[in-house]
Amino acid sequence: MQEIGLGLLGFGTVGAGVVEGLQRNGDLIAARAGVRPVLRKIADLDLDRDRGVVVDRSMLTTDATAVIHDPEIHIVIELIGGVGIARELVMEALKAGKPVVTANKKLLAEFGHELFPLADQHQVDLRFEASVAGGIPIIQALREGLIANHIPNAYGILNGTCNYILTRMEEEGRPFDEVLQEAQDAGYAEAEPSLDIDGHDTAHKAALLASLAYGFPYPLSRLHVEGIRGIAREDIENVCELGYRMKLLAILKKTGDQVGVRVHPTLVPLDHMLAQVGGVFNTVMVTGDIVGDTLYYGKGAGRLPTASAVISDIAAIARQLATQSSGHVPAFVPEGGQPQIQPMDEVLARNYLRLSLMDRPGVLAHVAGILGEHGISIETMVQKSRSRETYVPVILITHQAQEKNMREAVARLNESEHVGSKPVRFRIEDFA
Amino acid sequence: MQEIGLGLLGFGTVGAGVVEGLQRNGDLIAARAGVRPVLRKIADLDLDRDRGVVVDRSMLTTDATAVIHDPEIHIVIELIGGVGIARELVMEALKAGKPVVTANKKLLAEFGHELFPLADQHQVDLRFEASVAGGIPIIQALREGLIANHIPNAYGILNGTCNYILTRMEEEGRPFDEVLQEAQDAGYAEAEPSLDIDGHDTAHKAALLASLAYGFPYPLSRLHVEGIRGIAREDIENVCELGYRMKLLAILKKTGDQVGVRVHPTLVPLDHMLAQVGGVFNTVMVTGDIVGDTLYYGKGAGRLPTASAVISDIAAIARQLATQSSGHVPAFVPEGGQPQIQPMDEVLARNYLRLSLMDRPGVLAHVAGILGEHGISIETMVQKSRSRETYVPVILITHQAQEKNMREAVARLNESEHVGSKPVRFRIEDFA
Repeated sequence: MQEIGLGLLGFGTVGAGVVEGLQRNGDLIAARAGVRPVLRKIADLDLDRDRGVVVDRSMLTTDATAVIHDPEIHIVIELIGGVGIARELVMEALKAGKPVVTANKKLLAEFGHELFPLADQHQVDLRFEASVAGGIPIIQALREGLIANHIPNAYGILNGTCNYILTRMEEEGRPFDEVLQEAQDAGYAEAEPSLDIDGHDTAHKAALLASLAYGFPYPLSRLHVEGIRGIAREDIENVCELGYRMKLLAILKKTGDQVGVRVHPTLVPLDHMLAQVGGVFNTVMVTGDIVGDTLYYGKGAGRLPTASAVISDIAAIARQLATQSSGHVPAFVPEGGQPQIQPMDEVLARNYLRLSLMDRPGVLAHVAGILGEHGISIETMVQKSRSRETYVPVILITHQAQEKNMREAVARLNESEHVGSKPVRFRIEDFA
Repeated sequence: MQEIGLGLLGFGTVGAGVVEGLQRNGDLIAARAGVRPVLRKIADLDLDRDRGVVVDRSMLTTDATAVIHDPEIHIVIELIGGVGIARELVMEALKAGKPVVTANKKLLAEFGHELFPLADQHQVDLRFEASVAGGIPIIQALREGLIANHIPNAYGILNGTCNYILTRMEEEGRPFDEVLQEAQDAGYAEAEPSLDIDGHDTAHKAALLASLAYGFPYPLSRLHVEGIRGIAREDIENVCELGYRMKLLAILKKTGDQVGVRVHPTLVPLDHMLAQVGGVFNTVMVTGDIVGDTLYYGKGAGRLPTASAVISDIAAIARQLATQSSGHVPAFVPEGGQPQIQPMDEVLARNYLRLSLMDRPGVLAHVAGILGEHGISIETMVQKSRSRETYVPVILITHQAQEKNMREAVARLNESEHVGSKPVRFRIEDFA
């Protein structure tokens, strides 16, 4: 059977997972692909650390450039991460005409507008199945399985750390800081958790999904991002009582000619499939104009789930090289027309608003008045308790309101002498 | 842009859906595929019926053979259904070196052992994404996305009609016959519903999934099938009270060297994702030894969802033809070793058992004795009511028991003078 040489750049957690996957199931993969991918070189700065897999010492090198230019290497696998050396090496590989497989969502979200055209220019593939939702084959589903569909909307739970924290907070009624600390101790969250809990990792993945759904590199600068840092236990509980569950959602929507992508904590109706996704699992729900709603669920991170996706990309390219296909599949293609991005200010949503109000006559009318001035009407109001405190918590659910109006109304409320602590606001997703 | 000619055989519901999909999103599909699939001929016996789509009259013909041999036709799409003329035409197309796309699960499940080798022999693709779980791209996920994985187990809710009936029965507390009748009136169930409700349609799809997961054409004759016909309202209710939901599941399992596939009504724990799938939706859950659990959800039938899948196959082949790929991708490849099928008798499961027992001392000991003689122990027992009836319903949950023992014990119970109406038995799936 024909062999295709692989060069692995970066021998970290996922890199070792790829090595393990190829070692364990190499014969199966070769049989299914009709060609045998063979790992020939591994480049890393640290050649001594134990990764839990056994590789021939002669395979290891610190010289990534030499791996890229080795004529026995036909596919380059970038698992270094980050946007420094990884970016340079991916560019070098593409320029050398070597197809690249990467799991680096940050690199593609920030520099995809450079890297994908470079791949096109050199007619080689740059594949990234592992970069969104780990082991779930969502990239291929969007590019190929749903090729017949315009995508009116898509939703993703794309960060296992955030979903784990929200799940634990709800199930155990515990505060954010405590659960985060525990997740860090258990290795589910990084020591520096900002990339995850402030929503940036989700945003990188959402930008990639948007590129595939809408056919242009979605600029991160136009992507509205809010994370889950410091989310209050009482809001987690309140929304449950109201029939929702708090999820950090990536939301992609096409409205008329405009597309909009945002990431923020969102109230999801309890009976919706996305509300059922607990713990570290990821889920993507994609609506196609032909197929209707589809949903994909699985492990979004981890050494082996990510390796499964990396190997699927390797097999796809290997099969293509083996069949001497003249084709290069571009990562995404423009759908025609100038892409337009919907300003966040124009987004419409119902909202959950928790206000701390002075317990005296006329205050509710005052609040309703401010909302009314911004064109916002109230659907439901729940006063949580009437104690001897000066301020009482009041929960409002608004009817659908425009983001700009909501933001301005909340700012006005924040300045009001009748309002105690800062108003807390979350958007509700109705999947309509 | 290069054009690839399509010949459609069968202008029924799904055929018209494919025409509509190509008409509505043809430019998008061409842009994404890098090649334009163009429908050139449609063969059907009825050229006059209104299908809700407008096609050029000159495209229509009653001569399917001429379509197959037309040099302007590069891909043949079989949407006739059944195993008569459809089988002959698919064979003719493959022999003529034309790749074939089909949604015909019955044809592939019954004659795949002939058709796939024929496709291999003539080095053309026979693709069937639409044949399992409609619009969900599950075939590609198994063949490509999860290529790195052995599949220890997979589960499917694969028949929308059955799932719709079970959902309605539970939600509305109504009897089987009434809900079936209503489903027939609403067009969700066929006038001759046996293919769906007796589990055969699910079995066809399960056999195809098994072929992909295990690499050999799984014989229908070795596939244990039970449907949902006549399932009792009281069992639907009982299992809910016990923390389960009744689902018609396709179950694929690999145990050691043996693989086993079965279709039967199954108790699924209420908090499992598969229990959340209601109405006409389909779901497939696939466990990979590398990726872990993954799940895919969407519409399993219907004109447009099915068309979405058919078009994804068309685009894949068109891209391959356009890039002059020398490769033909076999439907599935043997994994090595002689495939072994686990006899149904050896399957292990916990069981739900509803007995109608004489209300007198010693009867429970008698029942426990019969079960005990067959090596079956009781986990839970619930007596549903104690009325003045001669017989009272008693629900037993067994510990894990072997199918053969269970079957024999139930037969013994059925003959017992202490047991009233025929014992009702369902298997419980613990997803372990």
